[in-house]
Amino acid sequence: MKINIPEVHLPRVVIIGCGFGGLELSKRLFDAPVQVVLIDKNNYHTFQPLLYQVSTSGLEADSIVYPIRKLFKGHKNFHYRWGEVTRIDPEQKTIETTIGTCRYDYLVMATGTTTNFFGIEGLAEKSMPMKSVVEALNLRSLILQNFEKALLVESTEERDALMTFVVVGGGPTGVELTGALCELKKHVLPNDYPELDFRKMRVILIESGDRLLSMMNEANRAKSVRYLQELGAEVWLNVKVTRYDGHEITTASGKNITAANLIWAAGVKGQMIEGLSQDAITPTKRYVVDDVNRVKGYDNIFAIGDMAYMVTDEYPKGHPQVAPVAIQQGHTLAKNIQHLIKGEPTKSFDYFDKGSMATIGRNRAVVEVGKISFGGFVGWVTWLLVHLMSIVGFRNRVVTLFNWLWNYVSYDRNIRLIIRPFVRKDSEVKV
Amino acid sequence: MKINIPEVHLPRVVIIGCGFGGLELSKRLFDAPVQVVLIDKNNYHTFQPLLYQVSTSGLEADSIVYPIRKLFKGHKNFHYRWGEVTRIDPEQKTIETTIGTCRYDYLVMATGTTTNFFGIEGLAEKSMPMKSVVEALNLRSLILQNFEKALLVESTEERDALMTFVVVGGGPTGVELTGALCELKKHVLPNDYPELDFRKMRVILIESGDRLLSMMNEANRAKSVRYLQELGAEVWLNVKVTRYDGHEITTASGKNITAANLIWAAGVKGQMIEGLSQDAITPTKRYVVDDVNRVKGYDNIFAIGDMAYMVTDEYPKGHPQVAPVAIQQGHTLAKNIQHLIKGEPTKSFDYFDKGSMATIGRNRAVVEVGKISFGGFVGWVTWLLVHLMSIVGFRNRVVTLFNWLWNYVSYDRNIRLIIRPFVRKDSEVKV
Repeated sequence: MKINIPEVHLPRVVIIGCGFGGLELSKRLFDAPVQVVLIDKNNYHTFQPLLYQVSTSGLEADSIVYPIRKLFKGHKNFHYRWGEVTRIDPEQKTIETTIGTCRYDYLVMATGTTTNFFGIEGLAEKSMPMKSVVEALNLRSLILQNFEKALLVESTEERDALMTFVVVGGGPTGVELTGALCELKKHVLPNDYPELDFRKMRVILIESGDRLLSMMNEANRAKSVRYLQELGAEVWLNVKVTRYDGHEITTASGKNITAANLIWAAGVKGQMIEGLSQDAITPTKRYVVDDVNRVKGYDNIFAIGDMAYMVTDEYPKGHPQVAPVAIQQGHTLAKNIQHLIKGEPTKSFDYFDKGSMATIGRNRAVVEVGKISFGGFVGWVTWLLVHLMSIVGFRNRVVTLFNWLWNYVSYDRNIRLIIRPFVRKDSEVKV
Repeated sequence: MKINIPEVHLPRVVIIGCGFGGLELSKRLFDAPVQVVLIDKNNYHTFQPLLYQVSTSGLEADSIVYPIRKLFKGHKNFHYRWGEVTRIDPEQKTIETTIGTCRYDYLVMATGTTTNFFGIEGLAEKSMPMKSVVEALNLRSLILQNFEKALLVESTEERDALMTFVVVGGGPTGVELTGALCELKKHVLPNDYPELDFRKMRVILIESGDRLLSMMNEANRAKSVRYLQELGAEVWLNVKVTRYDGHEITTASGKNITAANLIWAAGVKGQMIEGLSQDAITPTKRYVVDDVNRVKGYDNIFAIGDMAYMVTDEYPKGHPQVAPVAIQQGHTLAKNIQHLIKGEPTKSFDYFDKGSMATIGRNRAVVEVGKISFGGFVGWVTWLLVHLMSIVGFRNRVVTLFNWLWNYVSYDRNIRLIIRPFVRKDSEVKV
């Protein structure tokens, strides 16, 4: 069955995914002489950098996502369809989806990444990823469920395991989540569970490399470790997780730990779609693209953002998998597609690195902008403002700002709700 | 296994359910010389009167519920446990729950009601109830999913069915939900789905009796019908639904209609717990209680709120199943339990009826307070203020107020998100 989309006398650009890249590309094509078909399995755009605040009861999920159709309001050559793409047929210039087939003139893949468990035993089944709103909500439920359980168990060992939180991955997500868990331990959970001994709650950040926030300079990396330790987290560097049975985490160094909560933020892989040549795919599941994000071997198929692998002099191993790259590639590609349609020369993508930042609990963050780097309270305020302005939608910004002010003043996290209890598919999990 | 609760030298009051009644009772026992154990299957209190705004994308679920543990902060003789009560053993003075057994000195059932499908064919499987946050979120998803589907189907008949919304039940829930669906039709959905013909969207309110809002006076009842019709709803009175197959709604009068959306708000029944004598249970599943809410035949077991059936001169058929009754019964019972403990005489429950109200779209509501009744804009503002002040928690009030202001000014509903798609258990539904 063909997806019901009006045929017009305009080249059709099909965009798969409305993350940072797909959203920017769509917006930049609003006034171009093309018909845009956007397909996403979610009917909303997710502001991923704040998912960890959803997991830790600080923000409503609803205020960090934005309905796709609202972005499209009044643009008649735009068509959003709610569905998932299952296959590309480059010969026929069509895609197959869960809701039917659709032809394209230009196809842009912008589906981003998903969690990479690297085939480590037990992880896919027993650890918690945090790459989507649903995963973040599941983690919120699990954290709260495990404290409710901790009140009930008889054995000290079991109780300690329920109160042990291990975050794996020393990138911004892992660092920020670890900081937020420490805040829960310090300010929120002891009020909720006066019957539990919170000296027993452990928050451990495990990183297989020798550093946190590897994109930052040495001073900031050291600062992030210090900040986390001051908040009460344990930071384990050079530790590799090799197995998790839902109860015990085994590491390569033999430093094992019993924990009912393992959050895996240590790797991503592209969300590939079947149908393209294996030549175009890297071992880390990214599409090899040229300087205008065109997938190797195809004229009219593009990949942008986290799933694109573009080698440049400055980035011989591809660009970092961060939002600004996706946004800038979406922006540039919108222009290049129009150039291609008109038969004009295209313009190579050139990444402008605005810097990076990570927040660690209240009043603390590390920020780097070019050669300038700072932290502490100024860094924290900078982080807040940059994130606030990046959230899509005025209503969302107001609600988020109010929640932040509220959390800051009250030292509280109001959204500690188990709306849908998390149930592991494998229900035989020990604790 | 016994639920792990400290034994102290105080009488133990076990309260099942933290709805309006259980919440009020708990709060009123904060400073009493009793140990309170509160058990609820949700770790939050739900402000049910606004569930219909969650279903229609107007409010976040998170802002109309409130974490139970936050209510308990600092009260050391209070113990909340997350679990579901499965059975009462009045002989042993214990309850069985999904998390273990628990003894009581006084037991208060406050689990409220659940949807009553009256055994009508197909309803339990195919219609949408709206009595809990999860059900409201499922309805929100289904409404949006069906519009996404409507874009894809070829047949006009199927498309029309997907765009037909039938609400059954002429009480406040049915009336308010119908009004909100009309607002979606008028102001929100046509922007999202310019490819659909919204003259085809039908919103029908079906009531088996001859009136809407039967607790109101004739003028207000007539006004509510007029308001709904002005908003574009069809109001079918004296129509009884007898069957629903997920596609066609059959009625006793032979007036059938094809609809993919049937929202059932036409009846409730008490959420009974096994173990008490059948003598104490009415045919509509309520516990027969005396003038202090003590269940018939038991000394130390009470029922309050929607599930309590207390016959008085003024209310020969029991009190209305509304929040104020539950709250007032919780309040009175808190005093009476203390009287009972001290061997003092108890005080009969006396309901003070503050009136009733219902809102119908923007700027319109009907309100009755004693002999005074009014509607229109003044009624609508009254409705807003009363509901706003009744929501638990300052943060929730601010977020709700902001959302209302935003929705009012922008004519929008921002939270039209399909976070977890609704999947019918019976997946063989036609349409």
